[in-house]
Amino acid sequence: MNYPPTIRHLIECFKKLPGIGEKTAERLALSILSLDDEVNDLFADSIKNVKTKIKRCQKCNNLTENDLCDICSDTSRDKQVICVVDDPKNIILFEKVGSYSGMYHVLNNLISPLDGINPEDINLEQLIKRIDEDKIKEIIIAVKPSIEGETTALYIVKLLEKKDVVVSKIANGIPIGADMEYIDALTLEMALEDRKKISE
Amino acid sequence: MNYPPTIRHLIECFKKLPGIGEKTAERLALSILSLDDEVNDLFADSIKNVKTKIKRCQKCNNLTENDLCDICSDTSRDKQVICVVDDPKNIILFEKVGSYSGMYHVLNNLISPLDGINPEDINLEQLIKRIDEDKIKEIIIAVKPSIEGETTALYIVKLLEKKDVVVSKIANGIPIGADMEYIDALTLEMALEDRKKISE
Repeated sequence: MNYPPTIRHLIECFKKLPGIGEKTAERLALSILSLDDEVNDLFADSIKNVKTKIKRCQKCNNLTENDLCDICSDTSRDKQVICVVDDPKNIILFEKVGSYSGMYHVLNNLISPLDGINPEDINLEQLIKRIDEDKIKEIIIAVKPSIEGETTALYIVKLLEKKDVVVSKIANGIPIGADMEYIDALTLEMALEDRKKISE
Repeated sequence: MNYPPTIRHLIECFKKLPGIGEKTAERLALSILSLDDEVNDLFADSIKNVKTKIKRCQKCNNLTENDLCDICSDTSRDKQVICVVDDPKNIILFEKVGSYSGMYHVLNNLISPLDGINPEDINLEQLIKRIDEDKIKEIIIAVKPSIEGETTALYIVKLLEKKDVVVSKIANGIPIGADMEYIDALTLEMALEDRKKISE
């Protein structure tokens, strides 16, 4: 005895999502039973639509349903600064902060030779093309603070050596409100190294 | 700037599921993007099918795609014992144990007057009907060990007072492997009360 086939399939599908194990998948699949009809329809349709409607922006590789994403088609933004991120999710994070008004560029991944991800796999050519075409003044690197992120940042710096463009990287350091005793040694070292003079 | 509409809808749908907040919904919705085409189709179809194909068994109220569930249509089971549960999920749990070969009855809910759930709302008439029609010898109550569960159990006992049927309830006590210091007082009290002689 087991669940009816439809529910079994649904449990299997939920289990394919990150962080969802057998028990959670079961609970989520059964909770679909009690959704309103409209939510149920919207849910099923949205999952289908993700495959058919969602594309990558031709300019910056962000998620979009059009040729250009909302940011690339916004004429009021500063077109000469590009913030390089490694996940479309991070664009939303920066936009929530609201203080950045430049463009973005979404890498497909971070360089990680051990995992077979080489510089030519992460959509850097498009970035170079944009720098040349749009007369970009500054590239702000805002990728994940990891070995892969640092490797990618260094590679981009080297790639742009000969071009007339400033490359910067968002600051590493102690997050506001953090409990100092839980900060790892590397972060502390970087925070110390990048200290800022606050009086003469 | 926000996600494209399809992804926004998907995030909203995930948020309707139990235990899924904003961040998790976002992560799950974005992970749908990287599912294989077949899994994506199966996922969307299964969600739709849950509403159209999944019904309640006409006899025991279990989830099924037919008129009778797999257990009610299994002729090899003991038709004169009914285990009363408050969630179809618990049938799967009992079936995994494998030592029970009787029938089941799924209540729609547990009695909870404060939440407006009265005895007539939880599918007890069908249970009474089955007791009369199928000459049931024993009813095993296996509902959640809570105030609502106890209320429901007591109500069932009272309801069946005049009928020639044994009513039993699965044992409460210390779970095997539990750390005694984390067992609550009520459980300990019940375990003490229901102690079993192991030598004369």
